[in-house]
Amino acid sequence: MSQITNILAERYASPSMKSIWSTEGKIRLERQFWIAVMEGQRELGLDIPAEAIDAYKKVVDQIDLDSINERERITRHDVKSRIEEFCDLAGHEHIHKGMTSRDLTENVEQLQVYQGLQEIHKKSIAALVRISARSQEFSDLVITARTHNVAAQVTTFGRRLAEFGEELLGATQQLQHILDSYPVRGLKGAVGTQLDQLSLFDGDAQKVAELENKVVAHLGLPAKLVNPGQVYPRSLDLRVVSNLNEIASGPSSFAKTLRLMAGHELASEGFAKGQVGSSAMPHKMNSRSCERINGFTTLLGGYLTMASSLAGDQWNEGDVSCSVVRRVLLPDSFFSADGLLETFITVLDQMAAYPAVIERENEHYLPFLLSTTFLMEATKAGVGRETAHEVIKEHAVAAAQAYRSGESNKNDLLERLAGDDRIGFSEEKIAQILKFGRNATGAAASQIDYFAASVEKLAKQFPEAAAYQAGDIL
Amino acid sequence: MSQITNILAERYASPSMKSIWSTEGKIRLERQFWIAVMEGQRELGLDIPAEAIDAYKKVVDQIDLDSINERERITRHDVKSRIEEFCDLAGHEHIHKGMTSRDLTENVEQLQVYQGLQEIHKKSIAALVRISARSQEFSDLVITARTHNVAAQVTTFGRRLAEFGEELLGATQQLQHILDSYPVRGLKGAVGTQLDQLSLFDGDAQKVAELENKVVAHLGLPAKLVNPGQVYPRSLDLRVVSNLNEIASGPSSFAKTLRLMAGHELASEGFAKGQVGSSAMPHKMNSRSCERINGFTTLLGGYLTMASSLAGDQWNEGDVSCSVVRRVLLPDSFFSADGLLETFITVLDQMAAYPAVIERENEHYLPFLLSTTFLMEATKAGVGRETAHEVIKEHAVAAAQAYRSGESNKNDLLERLAGDDRIGFSEEKIAQILKFGRNATGAAASQIDYFAASVEKLAKQFPEAAAYQAGDIL
Amino acid sequence: MSQITNILAERYASPSMKSIWSTEGKIRLERQFWIAVMEGQRELGLDIPAEAIDAYKKVVDQIDLDSINERERITRHDVKSRIEEFCDLAGHEHIHKGMTSRDLTENVEQLQVYQGLQEIHKKSIAALVRISARSQEFSDLVITARTHNVAAQVTTFGRRLAEFGEELLGATQQLQHILDSYPVRGLKGAVGTQLDQLSLFDGDAQKVAELENKVVAHLGLPAKLVNPGQVYPRSLDLRVVSNLNEIASGPSSFAKTLRLMAGHELASEGFAKGQVGSSAMPHKMNSRSCERINGFTTLLGGYLTMASSLAGDQWNEGDVSCSVVRRVLLPDSFFSADGLLETFITVLDQMAAYPAVIERENEHYLPFLLSTTFLMEATKAGVGRETAHEVIKEHAVAAAQAYRSGESNKNDLLERLAGDDRIGFSEEKIAQILKFGRNATGAAASQIDYFAASVEKLAKQFPEAAAYQAGDIL
Amino acid sequence: MSQITNILAERYASPSMKSIWSTEGKIRLERQFWIAVMEGQRELGLDIPAEAIDAYKKVVDQIDLDSINERERITRHDVKSRIEEFCDLAGHEHIHKGMTSRDLTENVEQLQVYQGLQEIHKKSIAALVRISARSQEFSDLVITARTHNVAAQVTTFGRRLAEFGEELLGATQQLQHILDSYPVRGLKGAVGTQLDQLSLFDGDAQKVAELENKVVAHLGLPAKLVNPGQVYPRSLDLRVVSNLNEIASGPSSFAKTLRLMAGHELASEGFAKGQVGSSAMPHKMNSRSCERINGFTTLLGGYLTMASSLAGDQWNEGDVSCSVVRRVLLPDSFFSADGLLETFITVLDQMAAYPAVIERENEHYLPFLLSTTFLMEATKAGVGRETAHEVIKEHAVAAAQAYRSGESNKNDLLERLAGDDRIGFSEEKIAQILKFGRNATGAAASQIDYFAASVEKLAKQFPEAAAYQAGDIL
Repeated sequence: MSQITNILAERYASPSMKSIWSTEGKIRLERQFWIAVMEGQRELGLDIPAEAIDAYKKVVDQIDLDSINERERITRHDVKSRIEEFCDLAGHEHIHKGMTSRDLTENVEQLQVYQGLQEIHKKSIAALVRISARSQEFSDLVITARTHNVAAQVTTFGRRLAEFGEELLGATQQLQHILDSYPVRGLKGAVGTQLDQLSLFDGDAQKVAELENKVVAHLGLPAKLVNPGQVYPRSLDLRVVSNLNEIASGPSSFAKTLRLMAGHELASEGFAKGQVGSSAMPHKMNSRSCERINGFTTLLGGYLTMASSLAGDQWNEGDVSCSVVRRVLLPDSFFSADGLLETFITVLDQMAAYPAVIERENEHYLPFLLSTTFLMEATKAGVGRETAHEVIKEHAVAAAQAYRSGESNKNDLLERLAGDDRIGFSEEKIAQILKFGRNATGAAASQIDYFAASVEKLAKQFPEAAAYQAGDIL
Repeated sequence: MSQITNILAERYASPSMKSIWSTEGKIRLERQFWIAVMEGQRELGLDIPAEAIDAYKKVVDQIDLDSINERERITRHDVKSRIEEFCDLAGHEHIHKGMTSRDLTENVEQLQVYQGLQEIHKKSIAALVRISARSQEFSDLVITARTHNVAAQVTTFGRRLAEFGEELLGATQQLQHILDSYPVRGLKGAVGTQLDQLSLFDGDAQKVAELENKVVAHLGLPAKLVNPGQVYPRSLDLRVVSNLNEIASGPSSFAKTLRLMAGHELASEGFAKGQVGSSAMPHKMNSRSCERINGFTTLLGGYLTMASSLAGDQWNEGDVSCSVVRRVLLPDSFFSADGLLETFITVLDQMAAYPAVIERENEHYLPFLLSTTFLMEATKAGVGRETAHEVIKEHAVAAAQAYRSGESNKNDLLERLAGDDRIGFSEEKIAQILKFGRNATGAAASQIDYFAASVEKLAKQFPEAAAYQAGDIL
Repeated sequence: MSQITNILAERYASPSMKSIWSTEGKIRLERQFWIAVMEGQRELGLDIPAEAIDAYKKVVDQIDLDSINERERITRHDVKSRIEEFCDLAGHEHIHKGMTSRDLTENVEQLQVYQGLQEIHKKSIAALVRISARSQEFSDLVITARTHNVAAQVTTFGRRLAEFGEELLGATQQLQHILDSYPVRGLKGAVGTQLDQLSLFDGDAQKVAELENKVVAHLGLPAKLVNPGQVYPRSLDLRVVSNLNEIASGPSSFAKTLRLMAGHELASEGFAKGQVGSSAMPHKMNSRSCERINGFTTLLGGYLTMASSLAGDQWNEGDVSCSVVRRVLLPDSFFSADGLLETFITVLDQMAAYPAVIERENEHYLPFLLSTTFLMEATKAGVGRETAHEVIKEHAVAAAQAYRSGESNKNDLLERLAGDDRIGFSEEKIAQILKFGRNATGAAASQIDYFAASVEKLAKQFPEAAAYQAGDIL
Repeated sequence: MSQITNILAERYASPSMKSIWSTEGKIRLERQFWIAVMEGQRELGLDIPAEAIDAYKKVVDQIDLDSINERERITRHDVKSRIEEFCDLAGHEHIHKGMTSRDLTENVEQLQVYQGLQEIHKKSIAALVRISARSQEFSDLVITARTHNVAAQVTTFGRRLAEFGEELLGATQQLQHILDSYPVRGLKGAVGTQLDQLSLFDGDAQKVAELENKVVAHLGLPAKLVNPGQVYPRSLDLRVVSNLNEIASGPSSFAKTLRLMAGHELASEGFAKGQVGSSAMPHKMNSRSCERINGFTTLLGGYLTMASSLAGDQWNEGDVSCSVVRRVLLPDSFFSADGLLETFITVLDQMAAYPAVIERENEHYLPFLLSTTFLMEATKAGVGRETAHEVIKEHAVAAAQAYRSGESNKNDLLERLAGDDRIGFSEEKIAQILKFGRNATGAAASQIDYFAASVEKLAKQFPEAAAYQAGDIL
């Protein structure tokens, strides 16, 4: 039997995200961390030869998982087996001085989380750049806006996209704040008091503080905890996974909306060139990618439940009933968010709108949407308000019923109104109102511009992110 | 049958939090909102007489729920019934111009959320001030730190408290950021394009923008959305409820730890004066308040699942399948967080530590915790490292087994070591090591100081919050 | 400030469900429970006068919440205050002998759960009877079936309803099994060993067993636990709340589907007589009730998270960190399920289908759905399979594109096929295929019959449930 | 970069569970399913040569994942690539007749679920057999029972185990019921109406029904759905994952309790021979396996959230926004439950109790626990009830305070009582009460017997399950 692979990693996640969470990737980060600690310890006076450090540096990338696993089968201790492997490769025994396992693993896992967040931040910006561009492209494409899934007023397709884009923008700004303030545990020893490093440095608190600062600088994280126990507070994981859920929200609402639109041929998520639906039914172009975006969102909701169960469940200075949970929760929630953004970017690149079908829908609903305009115009023309209201309501209901019953094959509200002497609309008047209503998209254009400007500013700040291209998706 | 009350509100929440979410409170906020809109519209040229506004202002506090409910039974429309009531009271019909229901309810609900968050922020600071004070009070009380619920090293009780305090501090800082950046929906009309206000102002976009800015200023919220649909993005609710969960995490881990300590008489959550456990069993002082803190945390986890289900589930410009959910989710999650903090503050005020019992535990475990120190001292004295390790391990295991089997009635590791010639420890040497180990709390004291300084800074920034006194709890 | 009411109870739940969970209802159940215990104890030889029992019986319904609350403010013990009130009313002190608080509250809460489940079972059957009836009513109404929200084959509207009905039927059968096997905790004393009742009966285990059996018989529950601790296992609550979620699933998928159909005027959830949408837009009939059904489902998902957090979190013989959670979780999840079923039944009673609109949709999609039939017929007529496939695909794609681009105003696939010599279909042939396809609903009719027969059987078994009429909903 | 493996499968799950969910395993099930369909179709008259079926049978186990993946890269359709591979291997093209992809995948996934449940059922029984055996082994070991984590009465360790065992027994019986009634989707075609098979059999409904029955018989599932759409209702997955959570509950409460006991050396989860804690601290034997059991329970809670999100979210005849979710949710929840039971069985095999430490705890708490007995005995001897209560309470409180303050080094309640003339207990009397109290375990023994008998009955019914041996765990 072959190994069972992580389906999220292997089927949906990008190489860069996989690399952060791969076993090799983690081992490399650990080794770099040990080296940073050694260098700090040496600079602060511990007797660690420079050539030992060099020897370790040379073998950082010699990662032999089989050998490490073989060691673990004997020692039954995962960190110890990785220490031994690294030391044997280097031919020295200088790493891990004054450190407990958690001094290694907590910091490195936090680094993985931080790098994972950076990756998500990058792709969120890439998605924002695209949705802003599509929003501008469709800035004038008038569509029938719906609330409660029922036609309500007109808007533009660009404005609809800006709605979901603005939601993602807000989540991305929150993510930025999390990145800017994310605190790492540091070298705190077995229960958080730094006893182990203090013993190593004969109680010199100054040196221990300096060492920790060097190590945090190596990690590149913006802040550090001072009073953790054996582990960093698990509410930090909750903060992170919750933000991944927030990041997913705008794309997920977009995906649901596109699935709704595609069901009536108003738009489609687009397809690779030449692809035209199933071979049995060429018209049948399922919104598989959008469905997948919604699926990733559901996964993230489950991981959020896990993260919230861990937060607030610490006993004393720390226990690790969370161990097996975090081995799954952290990579899988990042793979889900990554897969979601990769898919979202692809859909944004490929989606198409069908203006002719959209226009047919507008035509059908516009007369209904203009009820209040008709009312206003009638009263302006001297018809009593109550009368006007009654007449319009009577015809609107009749038109809807005629269409639904089959009595009429289209929405004939305009004809009904035109023929009613009580309000006396000429055909020209009705056409004029219709023309006005057809374009009554309010502030949509300037709202889109505002969104575009916000995204442009962000794109300038993070040009590499803005230029990111998603890989091929399944 | 009497009405079924909201148990969270009536049994656990504070008056200030109840007031935010009460029906009367909401109606008052709505009326103030309508007035703010009217004032803005008048200033911008709409024909609304000043005396009408005054008339509305006079009756803001005349809230008759029975009358409003009676109206709703007829109109079957909740907002309409509140419009009619307010207008009848004022004797005018000038409110709600160019507004849809959501222009009212979304903004007012966001204001409730914002005020709820301010309340939580205040109480978090009050809790921080207390946990910091208790942490300093117990700064020198040495306790046996535990990881995996097993004795690991010594720390101080103050340091243990600082651990949970620092977690709450981080969550409070996140909450501060959410407050500082919380965006309100504003007057966006039926589908978000501001068509309705634009119609009212004959298409004058400048005036509509000014009106909205005035209204946002009235609300006192720090930011506004530009591209929402009918509703604000529900991921904002997720952000909020997630932060409430984060706020709960430190207190919840504290509560679990105190329940563990109380089970072995190391500490207790404290009791009202004179209270001494159950009458049947006077010794039995259950940690009911701490259990309740953990219970509130579980509730918040459930509300988080609800909030995460709503995020990313918007169809088109908005549908309100979330309506019934948010009627429950928003108040109940705030009541839970509020009840949690009220309880937490009370426990912090009343909890007691039992140094004599704590010291007995230290005595029992210290010899075990000093294994590495014994090893170091033996090798310093010339014993071979392998030999020393073997001897210490042999005696540690034997001492543990003797105690567990009943062969010995106490941990006799020290006696065993003292009697073994292979490592040659004198009784004085052992006493000296013990004395050292007894105080090996590392950087605990300075870590506590760091926490105290952070809290003091916050307390100075928010003096009213720092001085908050919790009400009586059940 | 008036009391904050439980919105789920007061706004959505039925009187019968409210009565189960009301404070008065619970106090009545407790008093009846105490009387059953006394009667058992008396029959088994304890010295409890018959007139005392009579005295208690007479005052069972004299429930004065204010008086009880007043007592609780003094004793600070909820059960004790209810004991005192009942004894003072009766003028005796014979209740609660050999009982701990949990002997009372656990059993009574389980009875509430059991009665709540019976209520849900009843309404599920009522809903099944209705959906079966509507399914038969629409047995021949051909509609365009959709997968991935895209037209796939035809089915009937009755068959679509049977799909959701069968799902509810399965959940209802599971509920039946839970009811049939639900085990009650019984009189197990402080830690589960029945020590307290054994002491009362001088160690006579036989009598204690008989007493417990009498009490369980009073409750009317089908089974009892033997080895619980202080409390019954909380996984029982998980089982129950999970089933409520399962019950919600069929109705929820139905509601989503009806919202989708209503958005394109294929059906509507129906409205009270005379009601015709919003006054501003008479055509706008929002699926508010269906949205609410989906909302209740979201609530139940959150309560499930709470229930699952409590399961597996028991320490030793029981702790009650679950107390505040269950005070909320149990009533609120039952109110949600109850509100959902009341709403579902109402929608089933009132919903309407619009055959003319449905038929327009069928006409539009049928040519696409018949691709495989065209292929088969062409090959039968001697056209090469590859050629036929190519031709049909070419025209299908072209027809879809023409419609979407506006080149054609309808799906002109049939015209395209008719005009292509390569496959040589006559217009008659095409009309014949279309007629066949129009009715290609497979086994739909007999599948509906099967569902109807299953429901009929259940309705005969539970005639009262089948005849249940929902109350008015908001 | 090597592949990222599924950590739950590779690190924790058993080979049998991995085999069910492995890609190879699934492909084999699919091929067997296709063969069963072909055999049925042939028997019912379709023109499928026997030698073709034989040819397929011969290559069932020739599973070349690389080749299949290569095909998928070209066809971009996972089912099609597996059809082609199987046909090429067999040299025939007779599989998948009248089938849609979902006719294959839904049934096979349900079979995987069913087999997974059988595996869980087996291991639950194995665990029950063990916990019953340990419960009997420790039937007489008196321990201090705790409620609210505070000493309450005595019980036995065996009785404590029976508590968690009975909870698992109830969940296992529910699982049995789910297995007995689990309905499979069957061959229902693209939208559920069986149109495709009906076309194949020229509309012969009888034959289609027979074919489906043959196929269901092949699968070995106990029931079938009649009215599903494209997919089976996702509430079935909720039912299953919810039961996995229920199965986890008893073991999880056991694990928490053992972690609590281990923290005070009352028991330990046991260790492989020779293993004696960490090398640095030989006494430190962490309850890693019990923590892991709790971790698996947390994972299952997250998967439950996912399952509950999918239930009730079906649009029309089915959409597959659930696809990516179920690819993760189904295997990972089964791996979690499997890992949990493997770990639980191992702990049950290895755990140890430490009677000497247990007895010290009993000694300490017994005097407190006997308050009510002292009261009873004093009144029997003629002391006024009020006086007796006052005296006992006074001394109990004083003894507790003396112990906690360090004034006394042990619980000296007995000495205090012996010396108080007001109640006049002789030392003999006190010793006698103590002896009685020491054994006041009520009905514990017979309750354990009842549990043992229930488990024995189950073990006889499922002898293979009862004899199951867990593999080595990490």
